[in-house]
Amino acid sequence: MAAFNVSEAKLRLYDYFRSSAAYRVRIALNLKGIPYTQQSVNLLAGEQDGLEYGAINPQGVVPSLEIAPGDYLYQSLAILEWIEERYPEPALLPADPLERARVRALAMVVACDIHPLNIVRVLRYLENELEVPADARSRWYTHWIQRGFHALETQLSAQGPFCRGAQLSLADVCLVPQVFNARRFEVPLDDFPRIVRSADHCNGLEPFARARPENQPDAR
Amino acid sequence: MAAFNVSEAKLRLYDYFRSSAAYRVRIALNLKGIPYTQQSVNLLAGEQDGLEYGAINPQGVVPSLEIAPGDYLYQSLAILEWIEERYPEPALLPADPLERARVRALAMVVACDIHPLNIVRVLRYLENELEVPADARSRWYTHWIQRGFHALETQLSAQGPFCRGAQLSLADVCLVPQVFNARRFEVPLDDFPRIVRSADHCNGLEPFARARPENQPDAR
Repeated sequence: MAAFNVSEAKLRLYDYFRSSAAYRVRIALNLKGIPYTQQSVNLLAGEQDGLEYGAINPQGVVPSLEIAPGDYLYQSLAILEWIEERYPEPALLPADPLERARVRALAMVVACDIHPLNIVRVLRYLENELEVPADARSRWYTHWIQRGFHALETQLSAQGPFCRGAQLSLADVCLVPQVFNARRFEVPLDDFPRIVRSADHCNGLEPFARARPENQPDAR
Repeated sequence: MAAFNVSEAKLRLYDYFRSSAAYRVRIALNLKGIPYTQQSVNLLAGEQDGLEYGAINPQGVVPSLEIAPGDYLYQSLAILEWIEERYPEPALLPADPLERARVRALAMVVACDIHPLNIVRVLRYLENELEVPADARSRWYTHWIQRGFHALETQLSAQGPFCRGAQLSLADVCLVPQVFNARRFEVPLDDFPRIVRSADHCNGLEPFARARPENQPDAR
C-alpha cells in the first residue's frame, strides 16, 4: 500500500451537529489544529440510511472521516486513535502504558457503556418496536448516564482541571459530548462534581467551544 | 510513578466464563502466551455488585486485570491495547496506521455497537423495568447482532482466513466471542459467510479454544 501523505489531502468529516460520536472527532481535530471540511448527514431526516451515504459508510452511522478521495475511516474511537498516531502533538494519550490504559478505560466507559444505549436508533427501537412510553424512555436515558457517571466520578482526578489531572486527554474528548447530552436531557449531575468540573473547564477552551453542536454549520 | 516490571507479577483476571468482554481478554492473553490466574465473579449470582468486588472495580463489571497487587485495569478494549503495548508479539494490530484504524473499527462495531445492547444488565433492565416480554427481548438481541454483522460482513476479507486477511488481529479477538453469543442465542448467521468463516477458523486454533466459556474453571 502506498504511503498516505496527510499533507496532500484535506480531511472531510461526515458529521451531524448532534452526533456525540462526531462531536468527539471534531474536538480532537480542533485540539490538534488539523483543518477539515464537514459534510452534514441529517440523522433525523434519515440521510444515514440513504443509498448515497450507504456507499460511504456501510453501517449508516456518523462519523466517517475521508482521509483521501474515496478512503474512509469509521468508528469514532478508531478515528481518534488514528488521529493520535498520525498527528501526535499535542498528545491526547500519555506516554506511560499504564496511564494510557487508564485514559482509554475512562473514554470507553462513555463510548461502550453509556453512549451506545442512548443513541437515536436505540431510542427509536424502544419507541417503535417495544412501544416504551416517553417517560420510561427518559428514565432509561438517565439510568445509563448516571450508572456510568458514578463509575467515572470515582476515577477522575480530585485536583483537576481535566479528567486525569493536569493533562488533557482522550477521556476529556469523550466526556464533554456525554455531559452535553446529559444536560440537554436534564439528567441531574449533582452527584458528579469532578465530571462537571472537567467538562466545564474543557468547555472554556476554544477547540472544545468550536466543536459544540450549536456552533456547527448544520445546527438548527 | 515507579516503572512496573511485568516479569515481577503474574497477571490476575477477574473473569466470568460467559462474559464476552472477559472472553476477549482471555483470547489475547493466550495468543501472546502470557500466564495469568483467574478469579471468577459470578454475574448471575450478583457478585459484581457486592462490596468485595466493588472495591476492585467501581463499575461492577468484568473484566478487571490486576497487573500488580492492588493495581487494576478496566474496560476490555483498554486492557487489550495495554496488552498489545506491553507484549507486542505476536502483534494483534498491524504496523500501518491506516490498517490499524480499519482493525480497530471492526473491533469497535462489536464492542460499541453490538455488545453493549445485549449484556446481562441491559437485558435485565428491559425485563424488570420496562416489562418487555421474553420474545421481544429475543428479537432485540437478534436485531442488534444482525445489524452490526451486516456492516461487518462487508468489511471482512473475501479470502480470509481472518477478518482482515492473512493476519490475525484484534478484530478476530472481538468477533469470536460475539459469534459465540449469537450461536448461543440461535441468531441466524446465514447472511454472514465471512464472519462465520473467520470465527470458525479462529475457533480451530488452540489459544481461542482454551479461552472458550465452556473451558473455563467456573463454567457450569
